Amino acid sequence: MTENPDLREYWEASSMLLPSISIDCAIFGFHDNQLKILLLKYKNTDFFALPGGFINQDENLEDAAARILEERTRLKDIYLEQFYVFGDKSRRFDKIHHQLMSGSGLKLKEGHFLLNRFISVGYYALIDFSKATPVPDILSDSCQWYDLETVPSLIFDHDAILNKALRTLRSNIDEKLIGLNLLPETFTMNEFQNLYETILGEKIARSNFQRKVLGMHILKRLDKKITGGAHKAPYLYSFDNKGVGK
Amino acid sequence: MTENPDLREYWEASSMLLPSISIDCAIFGFHDNQLKILLLKYKNTDFFALPGGFINQDENLEDAAARILEERTRLKDIYLEQFYVFGDKSRRFDKIHHQLMSGSGLKLKEGHFLLNRFISVGYYALIDFSKATPVPDILSDSCQWYDLETVPSLIFDHDAILNKALRTLRSNIDEKLIGLNLLPETFTMNEFQNLYETILGEKIARSNFQRKVLGMHILKRLDKKITGGAHKAPYLYSFDNKGVGK
Repeated sequence: MTENPDLREYWEASSMLLPSISIDCAIFGFHDNQLKILLLKYKNTDFFALPGGFINQDENLEDAAARILEERTRLKDIYLEQFYVFGDKSRRFDKIHHQLMSGSGLKLKEGHFLLNRFISVGYYALIDFSKATPVPDILSDSCQWYDLETVPSLIFDHDAILNKALRTLRSNIDEKLIGLNLLPETFTMNEFQNLYETILGEKIARSNFQRKVLGMHILKRLDKKITGGAHKAPYLYSFDNKGVGK
Repeated sequence: MTENPDLREYWEASSMLLPSISIDCAIFGFHDNQLKILLLKYKNTDFFALPGGFINQDENLEDAAARILEERTRLKDIYLEQFYVFGDKSRRFDKIHHQLMSGSGLKLKEGHFLLNRFISVGYYALIDFSKATPVPDILSDSCQWYDLETVPSLIFDHDAILNKALRTLRSNIDEKLIGLNLLPETFTMNEFQNLYETILGEKIARSNFQRKVLGMHILKRLDKKITGGAHKAPYLYSFDNKGVGK
């Protein structure tokens, strides 16, 4: 197996990185009532992982997270939120790193920074997956969207990271949905309810949903949607920025 | 100035610590309608700081935070919550560390781990300050409770960390108050409202407060409190654990 020169560079650049700290990103994608998660598959293995990376010595933590998101999706200026720091002492993945790297044609020497214990800062994002262009990283041969119901099992502790991200996304849904640009400028109550239900992964009674979101004072009711039968046309809504924030 | 042997040990132990990662704790104390914050004052300086520390190579992040809280308050099994990771590249405090250490009789040699950039994981706790025994750390000569209104200005970026912790505490008040043992087993609506108002730093109309907390279904109404004039006695409440969680 020959050594990959890009990877040798990757190795040599590790002194420019903050030691012992990584970033893992749960990038959720929504489109047409589907909720997906972006995963990488490591080269020449069946190992799947959340996208992630490291922090340059001269880079803000937030900027590193935004850079990783942009590298994997080509999207800029996406809302990313820290949701948890994973810091168990068991987070030392030397064996699996040896295996992963050998899949990419690299032998990790003793003392390589990847063999240390890492603390990982988890970020999540929720984007319209139809607007993203998934790009594999240097160690992976695919970067794709997976349905949450059929997500493969992940390496390291990434199953736990994904679960925690999903729980946080769901429990923050009321605060976070506004402004994430997952709906068109104007939308029907039905479209809004579908977004909620897709993210929560469960059905909500229509009357309960209406009472709840109207009570949040975040919506502005506009004209009716123009359809064939005007008397059955649903109202259109937009987010009422004046009402946002408590 | 002579070198302090305990501090030499502290220096030599630094290879046992995770590099570049620290913990800062905003320990809020509540008692008798007062909300306070625990601060350290560095030896022979006028520098105030939040309690904090580092993570041993063989220690879970959560355990390190609990250890720091216990070392500064002598309290065990306190609910501590991660609230944010502070990761700006400007978090390299070499000048001020030289100054602080010289106040403790130590000269930091080039390459000392304190001179590196640090990413800090912020934790907050809310405790009954009458139950804590504040204990200074090796670098400080006092550890005391300060009123939030008259808190001195803090070193590093600790003003920003304290502000973020306070905002998080206030925005999580509904979810977090239950089970924090800041009220006696049974309490009046008035006592409960005082706790809220003290933490939020603002008055709430009595009728609004009652409607809100009764709507949360977290309280169980018990008998009236026995006082002189029975017809004016307030009801007692306790937390209804069956109602907790949504």
